[in-house]
Amino acid sequence: MNEGRETAGQLVAVDQLPPLAITMGDPAGIGPELCLRVVQEPSVLSCCLPVIVGDLEVLLRVARSCDLSVPERVVMLREWNSRLLDGNTPIVLDCQAIDAGLLRPGEIQASCGRAAFEYIRVAIEKTIAADFAGLVTGPIHKQALTRAHIPFPGHTEILATLTGADQVCMMLTSDVLSVSMVTSHTGFSDVPGQLTPELIVNVIRLTSDFFKTLGNAAPRIGVCGLNPHSGEGGMLGRGEEAEFIEPAIAKARAEGMSVTGPLAPDTAFLPEPMSRFDAIVCMYHDQGLIPFKMLAFDRGVNLTLGLPIIRTSVDHGTAFDIAWTGRASPRSMTEAILWAARLVPLKRKSGAVAAQS
Amino acid sequence: MNEGRETAGQLVAVDQLPPLAITMGDPAGIGPELCLRVVQEPSVLSCCLPVIVGDLEVLLRVARSCDLSVPERVVMLREWNSRLLDGNTPIVLDCQAIDAGLLRPGEIQASCGRAAFEYIRVAIEKTIAADFAGLVTGPIHKQALTRAHIPFPGHTEILATLTGADQVCMMLTSDVLSVSMVTSHTGFSDVPGQLTPELIVNVIRLTSDFFKTLGNAAPRIGVCGLNPHSGEGGMLGRGEEAEFIEPAIAKARAEGMSVTGPLAPDTAFLPEPMSRFDAIVCMYHDQGLIPFKMLAFDRGVNLTLGLPIIRTSVDHGTAFDIAWTGRASPRSMTEAILWAARLVPLKRKSGAVAAQS
Repeated sequence: MNEGRETAGQLVAVDQLPPLAITMGDPAGIGPELCLRVVQEPSVLSCCLPVIVGDLEVLLRVARSCDLSVPERVVMLREWNSRLLDGNTPIVLDCQAIDAGLLRPGEIQASCGRAAFEYIRVAIEKTIAADFAGLVTGPIHKQALTRAHIPFPGHTEILATLTGADQVCMMLTSDVLSVSMVTSHTGFSDVPGQLTPELIVNVIRLTSDFFKTLGNAAPRIGVCGLNPHSGEGGMLGRGEEAEFIEPAIAKARAEGMSVTGPLAPDTAFLPEPMSRFDAIVCMYHDQGLIPFKMLAFDRGVNLTLGLPIIRTSVDHGTAFDIAWTGRASPRSMTEAILWAARLVPLKRKSGAVAAQS
Repeated sequence: MNEGRETAGQLVAVDQLPPLAITMGDPAGIGPELCLRVVQEPSVLSCCLPVIVGDLEVLLRVARSCDLSVPERVVMLREWNSRLLDGNTPIVLDCQAIDAGLLRPGEIQASCGRAAFEYIRVAIEKTIAADFAGLVTGPIHKQALTRAHIPFPGHTEILATLTGADQVCMMLTSDVLSVSMVTSHTGFSDVPGQLTPELIVNVIRLTSDFFKTLGNAAPRIGVCGLNPHSGEGGMLGRGEEAEFIEPAIAKARAEGMSVTGPLAPDTAFLPEPMSRFDAIVCMYHDQGLIPFKMLAFDRGVNLTLGLPIIRTSVDHGTAFDIAWTGRASPRSMTEAILWAARLVPLKRKSGAVAAQS
């Protein structure tokens, strides 16, 4: 399982790095370009064996239009065998899920939704089988999924279903702010109806456990209210803070967690309150995503907590407007890969399932 | 109407500055301290004649505990006469609305809610009567208002009702970002039911007119969606973007306004999109207030657009935790006063009602 590397004239044995599946995302978006770029990043190559789960023909087209190169090691899906995961040279796992010749970059296409889903399905299957130590996902387009009749609003929901995970949550992390979402790709009107004390306490617990896995013995969690001014003592809104959020905070505290809230959402992300928390639990997508992207756009990582496998993701979308043009920044995907690699030994050590990204 | 000022040994005539009403806010909060501080600010004294609409006894107590002084010119409400607005020395308009001796700083009290409302009522009445050129409001506490059985969730709603304004909106402005709110102090669950194309186009129009009043001939307005990713083409949410927001944008464009949207809320407040707009119209309180406070806390100003009078406000609350301690920053109230003074000649010039803060 080792390969040799020449250093100062001597052949030195190099440890096998953890293999990470990197899904190509929507073929018509910036995902293929990102995959080709990250397998050239020294920071990526020094922490994992990257395996692009996608389509070779698409990668070849994108490589031509962006003046990039495609990894030389290519394995077709039907010939896949975990024994091929030898050495640390990047691999393309060719799923042949789409006819690259018919593909139009930058457009919503059912064929692309179908292919993007197939890459995720394959990557999850082989990560559960422990072929891969973890999974990093490229950006997908929800409308393309829908055109392909794939009934999931996003990665988080696909991962929860395909891994059989009971309770998961989306978390975004960065050096300045981490936010966990009680609801994620939920329509605005449907948010209040989905809130329960059980769901909220579960997200608090997943978040706290995640930071414990990282070595933080007593993570400090802030929890936002739902309404303006966190309901101002029940004056604004329908009492969701008292009915759902406060009982969840009380339960989490009773379990020994350090939890503060409900916080007024419009002041929770000022420097002083933020500095008091390792993470802030948010009730809905934009409550967490607006401040997170303002503070950490392009360098944040999207984690799914509560899965039986490690999974990280870019924190941006398919960027159809610049697809296949050579202008995509691989910064967020690189961060996602480094995070996944960082979590591998921690997961092995803790053995905990729910505590993992 | 002029007063004299000694300059280099000569008596120079000084123009009468516009009188501005400054309401004291909740007596138990930081409002009284802010009033005492701003009437000592040279920038305030050089742009207006400040009239504190509040309670003399409260101001005296706060002055003692904060080591500040109270303006010497005091007029009791029943003796008020606009002819007293002579010269540019600060005035206290003593409403005698509360028994200062029974008041507990930093606590929610019905007596304080009642008094805070009285200051606003008096200030609105006398601004409509043109005694004052504009109105700057100190922070109030909604729970105190409610204890006093005053059925308004906030200043915006009080002002709309007491001035008989048909359509108003809350706007927060600063040097980095301006946001206008389609709904403001509305519970989360009630937001979708309040959205109509008419309401949204009205907020777009008030916002555009405001910037025109400031001399911007073609204001550029961004409009956020309601759902995550602005509904992602109808995939997330209940189609509110197509039903309410897109028709409003189309109507505003047909009226000649420069409007873009619906914008995905979580990327609307990144530097590049923000730089393309003079203001961003938001569907609900925290969609606008989270980014605004992150970018401009303590130096933003709250304006009410659509009133027949000029009105600005601090962008923070009563800060009960530091009330009467001498630790309150007058920065936001100073900004609010400077903004009101700046708007006075513009309002006179434009003559427009709806175009004013």
